Amino acid sequence: MHQYWTLWQSWKTLDLLHQPNGADVLPKHVLSSHHEKFVTDQGSNKSPMVSSAWCFGSHHTNRICYFHNLCYLPHVDEFVFLHGNHSAYVGFPENRYDPTLMDMSSVKDHNTQYFNFMDADADKMQSVVDGAVIVQQTSLIFRRFHPDNLMHVLHDDLLPLFYTLSTLPFAESTRWNGLLPFNFQLVFMEGWDPGPFEDLYDMFSNVKPIYKSNMLSVDYPTCFRESYVGISKYTTWYQYGFVEPQGPIHDIRVTADDIHRFCRFLRMQLNVTEVPSDSERVIVLLSRRYNRLILNEIDLTFALAQNFHQKVVTVAMETHSLKDMVYLVSKSSILLGMHGSLFALAMFLPKGSTVVELFPYAINPAHYTPYKTLANLHGTDVNYLAWQNMDSTKTVTHPERSWDEGGIVHLSEEQQRRIMSSREVPLHLCCRDAEWLYRIYQDTVVDVDSIISLLKNSVNVQKSHSSSVDQNFVVESGFNSKRLSPSHVRNITCSSDTVVHGLPSLQLAWQPPANMRFINFVEVKYEVWIQEEGEDDYTAWMLTQYNYTFTAGIQLDTNYNVWIRCIVDDTVGPFNSNHVSCSTST
Amino acid sequence: MHQYWTLWQSWKTLDLLHQPNGADVLPKHVLSSHHEKFVTDQGSNKSPMVSSAWCFGSHHTNRICYFHNLCYLPHVDEFVFLHGNHSAYVGFPENRYDPTLMDMSSVKDHNTQYFNFMDADADKMQSVVDGAVIVQQTSLIFRRFHPDNLMHVLHDDLLPLFYTLSTLPFAESTRWNGLLPFNFQLVFMEGWDPGPFEDLYDMFSNVKPIYKSNMLSVDYPTCFRESYVGISKYTTWYQYGFVEPQGPIHDIRVTADDIHRFCRFLRMQLNVTEVPSDSERVIVLLSRRYNRLILNEIDLTFALAQNFHQKVVTVAMETHSLKDMVYLVSKSSILLGMHGSLFALAMFLPKGSTVVELFPYAINPAHYTPYKTLANLHGTDVNYLAWQNMDSTKTVTHPERSWDEGGIVHLSEEQQRRIMSSREVPLHLCCRDAEWLYRIYQDTVVDVDSIISLLKNSVNVQKSHSSSVDQNFVVESGFNSKRLSPSHVRNITCSSDTVVHGLPSLQLAWQPPANMRFINFVEVKYEVWIQEEGEDDYTAWMLTQYNYTFTAGIQLDTNYNVWIRCIVDDTVGPFNSNHVSCSTST
Repeated sequence: MHQYWTLWQSWKTLDLLHQPNGADVLPKHVLSSHHEKFVTDQGSNKSPMVSSAWCFGSHHTNRICYFHNLCYLPHVDEFVFLHGNHSAYVGFPENRYDPTLMDMSSVKDHNTQYFNFMDADADKMQSVVDGAVIVQQTSLIFRRFHPDNLMHVLHDDLLPLFYTLSTLPFAESTRWNGLLPFNFQLVFMEGWDPGPFEDLYDMFSNVKPIYKSNMLSVDYPTCFRESYVGISKYTTWYQYGFVEPQGPIHDIRVTADDIHRFCRFLRMQLNVTEVPSDSERVIVLLSRRYNRLILNEIDLTFALAQNFHQKVVTVAMETHSLKDMVYLVSKSSILLGMHGSLFALAMFLPKGSTVVELFPYAINPAHYTPYKTLANLHGTDVNYLAWQNMDSTKTVTHPERSWDEGGIVHLSEEQQRRIMSSREVPLHLCCRDAEWLYRIYQDTVVDVDSIISLLKNSVNVQKSHSSSVDQNFVVESGFNSKRLSPSHVRNITCSSDTVVHGLPSLQLAWQPPANMRFINFVEVKYEVWIQEEGEDDYTAWMLTQYNYTFTAGIQLDTNYNVWIRCIVDDTVGPFNSNHVSCSTST
Repeated sequence: MHQYWTLWQSWKTLDLLHQPNGADVLPKHVLSSHHEKFVTDQGSNKSPMVSSAWCFGSHHTNRICYFHNLCYLPHVDEFVFLHGNHSAYVGFPENRYDPTLMDMSSVKDHNTQYFNFMDADADKMQSVVDGAVIVQQTSLIFRRFHPDNLMHVLHDDLLPLFYTLSTLPFAESTRWNGLLPFNFQLVFMEGWDPGPFEDLYDMFSNVKPIYKSNMLSVDYPTCFRESYVGISKYTTWYQYGFVEPQGPIHDIRVTADDIHRFCRFLRMQLNVTEVPSDSERVIVLLSRRYNRLILNEIDLTFALAQNFHQKVVTVAMETHSLKDMVYLVSKSSILLGMHGSLFALAMFLPKGSTVVELFPYAINPAHYTPYKTLANLHGTDVNYLAWQNMDSTKTVTHPERSWDEGGIVHLSEEQQRRIMSSREVPLHLCCRDAEWLYRIYQDTVVDVDSIISLLKNSVNVQKSHSSSVDQNFVVESGFNSKRLSPSHVRNITCSSDTVVHGLPSLQLAWQPPANMRFINFVEVKYEVWIQEEGEDDYTAWMLTQYNYTFTAGIQLDTNYNVWIRCIVDDTVGPFNSNHVSCSTST
């Protein structure tokens, strides 16, 4: 045990590997905050610290846990749970290492994003946590996924963050009022720098976030009085191809309403509240400055202005603030450009507008649909169009660049030849497919005429000019997009009094579920299962009425078990939990 | 749809089937309470009511959900969730009807104990809930299992209730102070009357419980502002034989400490705080008055007094209050009697005491062990002894009684003969096995000498006289009985520099998990898996050191993947999440 004792005895005295900013970075950082509710309390609390935890969710991919007194130990880069007699430990899976307690980012089941903690006996740990910084404000601890790319920032971090914070339960002090930033301490555990979208992240809380580097740079633990760990995946619509080629997630739940609540919040934070009139609509061209260029961007701009009689604004990350971009997209009739993360701004588009996403040669638009999926989310009124360069003479490749900008000269000549002669990038996984990178970073001389005619042929472009403009940037579809389930059918009765055409029969009757008047649906059906007692197989019937006389296969002096469930549109309700027994008798 | 509209239109006007106590029972009941914190607010709240829910736990058998604005509709005997735009809906399983959202009692996966709610669109439901009674106090809604039997009351309801309330998170106002009754509105949904242990249930809350019959007896919904539904199974130790013959549950987690915290609370509520001295120890004989009698109870009493020189107190449900029984058991050296629910009081026994459970003829004690399991819970210092009547001449059967008191005359003569000649009740399921009931309700002339010698031969009886008596009735074992897990091993390194006896080798070294100093254990081992890259099988090694040089099966110029995990006593830690790659080279 010698090695190990040494490790632990060195805790309080030795310099650490990770100490980029010198000691006391966390307290300095924290105390420089303008927000008085953030209180640190280093070492002044002398009652023994014990952890508790309550976990929501049925699986590591949908779990969020709430902790009292969760501590982070910088020396070993682990969180620790202090088990004491009064520790609550509610809602945990049988084995929290199989494979993990939960995902720490909104990216599903990615093993670099797993969260767990180590166990400790509270008494044995007390001397270690006595020197800890205590974060008093309720915290949300998670990992940002890719904080330097706008699509990832919005889709993986900020939308999930907004939804998570909006739907956390409990203390009044942390409940969101719908307007101001959340009264939460955000804690980013992915280990990255604040990044280019720092301001955007900062809009979600009234205090500066804590970064992992802050906690790593000090030689004492950081303990969170109350914290939630994890982030909701409810709002995500796209997976990036880690286990199968990229595409929409299979069970999209987020709706246009959810997205627009987020956009409304962000506009308020950005102070983008001016309401443009219908006549102020503009065409926004998303421009890239370093790669994946539209080589004839100016021709395209002129053609758009000429054909649609609207101002065309060319925006780029390098020339426009996020606030400007959000403002311009919010009043645009058409949003177009080369495939890229700025298309995530399409969520700010007004009703009836059109997105045109351009793809370089050999890139099949059907295989890369994060923005198409966004534009087509349930309840959205945005028209999505894709255009692909099919002309190999209009593309400019860059084989000589580094691999991550699409270069291929590091590959064998055989491989280079194959890639250069291919006419479509085959389906592939993330993130280092050389052929994909080679093609996606091509520059293109786009076919202006075909893009204009694509737009003109789109009926929705016309529609966008005539459709009423939503005055508050908010699409309120007025339509509850949640699929509500019918409850169980009621009062199932059966009799076999009647002989129908000389045949024995079962007359079944029931009442509809008690919630039929309180859910929205178009069509209602009943599924009836009839099983002869003691047999395994059954006959199933689909009906639209509440009673029916069955004769097919019905025999005299036989007992039958009956189950019935209600189906509204595609939503299937539960069967009666105990079967109903029916007998035919002579 | 006619039938259905009629059903719903009748809601507010028709008399109801379930209206045993006339209208307005709930409000009367509620308003008669002395506790000012219970506020009802019928119809005065005019903002639209929307539900939210957060569920803890990974499976319907371990789930507890927290609701805002959950409503119960008496007319259809269903709970309803009002879905609105701002409904939070966190932690739900994919299909809450497969088979159910959760158990509503502490009895596991019993389909009569399932809880679910019906969906409703909040807007469509508003006119219905406008007339609802609103329960403002945070509520705990669950089903009692068998509220007229002391074992069931303690094991299925009150211990789980105590544990659940002690470990619920969140609002300060509902957090338990460790002393007074909980500031919770209890809601009993099993539909039974208060029952003979009403006072005991009432000790757990500062307001009177709401019974299902209260809510059924009025013609308007009851809505709970904040409620938890469900109850923890953490404290249960026994299953009653619904799916397999009765016995201890397979994964008992409750410890003596948990039980004693509950006992301490109950003693305080019962005002049993007197501390008996060692010299005041008594022998408690649990007596039954109507069935399963000890026919020579007086002989047994005399023999006990004579042999152990202690006062023998005969207690029975019919003659002693629960308070008296708890007091007497708390100071007893020996607790004995015929198998029955009063043995649940064994949880109040002091350290070093002895339980003797007597079983009638043909009842194998090994098959009925609720009290043996209790007495042997981890950390308990109570000696358990079972005695069975093996002499068929000393038993008195009652074949003529009704079936639920062990009568068998309703059975065929053949069946009666078989039962009467059997020498042991075979393993059986709950709850109507005729042979079991016939035998368990026998009266017995017990063999006093053999019981006395059983007791005298028990070393622990002697121990009980000499062991120090816990002065506060509390067994604090000082021993954290939770099994804490080692974390992952750290800094795994490998090299293959050394040739050992001319053979290639892999030298692996690692550091112990970071939490080793902070968990209790006796023995530590490391499990090492070595797999040749590209192969499916692997070799596994169990070691007690932190480094080892492997030569068996190690080949030159080969890549190996290595996983290592730590095992303390029987608790297995996680493997390193990414394998470590090692190469042997020439």
